[in-house]
Amino acid sequence: MLTGVRIVFLGGDARQIEVIRKCVELDATVSAAGFDQWERPCEGVSLEIMSAELLSNADILVLPTVGCDNEGHIKALFSSQQLQLLEEHVAALPHHCTVFTGIANEYLRQLCMKHTLKLTELLDRDDVAIYNSIPTAEGALVIAIQNTSFTIHGSKSIVLGMGRTGFTMAKSLKGLGASVKVGVRKQEHFARAEQMGWQPFMTDNILHHVSDADLIFNTVPSLIITAEVLSRIPRHAVIIDLASAPGGCDFRYAERRGIKAILAPGLPGIVAPQSAGIIMANALVQSISDGNLNKGG
Amino acid sequence: MLTGVRIVFLGGDARQIEVIRKCVELDATVSAAGFDQWERPCEGVSLEIMSAELLSNADILVLPTVGCDNEGHIKALFSSQQLQLLEEHVAALPHHCTVFTGIANEYLRQLCMKHTLKLTELLDRDDVAIYNSIPTAEGALVIAIQNTSFTIHGSKSIVLGMGRTGFTMAKSLKGLGASVKVGVRKQEHFARAEQMGWQPFMTDNILHHVSDADLIFNTVPSLIITAEVLSRIPRHAVIIDLASAPGGCDFRYAERRGIKAILAPGLPGIVAPQSAGIIMANALVQSISDGNLNKGG
Repeated sequence: MLTGVRIVFLGGDARQIEVIRKCVELDATVSAAGFDQWERPCEGVSLEIMSAELLSNADILVLPTVGCDNEGHIKALFSSQQLQLLEEHVAALPHHCTVFTGIANEYLRQLCMKHTLKLTELLDRDDVAIYNSIPTAEGALVIAIQNTSFTIHGSKSIVLGMGRTGFTMAKSLKGLGASVKVGVRKQEHFARAEQMGWQPFMTDNILHHVSDADLIFNTVPSLIITAEVLSRIPRHAVIIDLASAPGGCDFRYAERRGIKAILAPGLPGIVAPQSAGIIMANALVQSISDGNLNKGG
Repeated sequence: MLTGVRIVFLGGDARQIEVIRKCVELDATVSAAGFDQWERPCEGVSLEIMSAELLSNADILVLPTVGCDNEGHIKALFSSQQLQLLEEHVAALPHHCTVFTGIANEYLRQLCMKHTLKLTELLDRDDVAIYNSIPTAEGALVIAIQNTSFTIHGSKSIVLGMGRTGFTMAKSLKGLGASVKVGVRKQEHFARAEQMGWQPFMTDNILHHVSDADLIFNTVPSLIITAEVLSRIPRHAVIIDLASAPGGCDFRYAERRGIKAILAPGLPGIVAPQSAGIIMANALVQSISDGNLNKGG
């Protein structure tokens, strides 16, 4: 339970609504700015205007998954007003306050450091990355089905990287009956892929494994689908790059060769905002509990 | 091989191109009307204007998957011209000619009967229905993912009917990590569902099994999702009806209750025209071979 914990939300999209709902359910004292156009706000949340005063009462400040931009602008899908996190706001937060976001930029990091506030990035958590890999894989399948004239079933699919997303992607493809090869760097991943019934190869040898690919799903966040690799990929193949921007594919060369390559980061919030919200909500609550909330006053 | 067999194609979409390609590959003598806007016709096919003369030389006549309408109009996606199959055309076909289509209507059936021509409906074949269930299931997954805010993984999904499409649908859902219940009518399907790790129930008891459903995929071609069933389904649930029109759901009542219900027949040609074409091509060739082609003079 979060009884007595004062949580302030600033902006966000449909995901944040799930997070708010969960916090209210756990009996936290919840205020939210940037939700003036939320049609049916859940009972127990107090909708406010953003102000230093509002923040001065926060035990927990929750920003959207993407945090803010380099001038502090916060995306608020359910508001007609502009939200901007300025130094005066951060300065108003109590010292014991923890700031939560999905992923932080330099602007937010610097502000929190300057005011010695604890900053927690939820997307850094392994459990969040694993749960998020589920909507990511489902979104990637939708993109694959929509951008090909053949079925996933029976296709020759390659997954590059066997981290949290790569594993889920390979399992989902196999679940639909694709023939799945997985490009890995570590021997333990090679062994696990083999155990799962996928065909592993070492990414050092990638050039020898792409010539019959129908679909390539990349999760490696550095240039792995180089021009040389692209030159060996059949023209009908479709590349779906799930690594965070700028991805791991030479998109310029892919276009030149006429190979369809799609950069698709941030799928969970698009494909399954409710599920993605529940993932973030659970992580936030877990993280608050783990943090032994050190409430002042 | 189809050496020496004269096949005439009349109209069709991207699927038919795969069928044509396959017949050419097997050395048939292939003519096609209704393809004047086909950008890169494959070598070996002779593009013609539709005429009684063209048809008088056919050992095999292939119509599109959907056949023709009740006035004989044939859909020809790669043509600027209207194609119409009239009695004079059918009368011109040699007696030994077999007419192939996916599914025939009364118009086509009557014409063939009158001129004692063999008519074969490829979609009647069990193997075709099973292969087609693959793109159908993938298309249904895309619709489900796009029309919900939650993931398939972890969802409570119900598949109604365990025929050729129902089986594939349940397997695909399970492959993505859904919890799958299957409504069946036969004890042998009940047993098979249990063996597959799905949770079967008899459709007589459907009222007791839908109250926690997130997704319902219907394959039963008669009214099974009645108003009474709909009254027990949660409002957030999405119904995807894969049975041929008019489907098996009381759509009027679903709309009144605010439940999203989507009739989605004919998915293979939309989701995966190439795969669907290959399925039809293989079935055509198999069917021609099975038929011990009785070529006249």
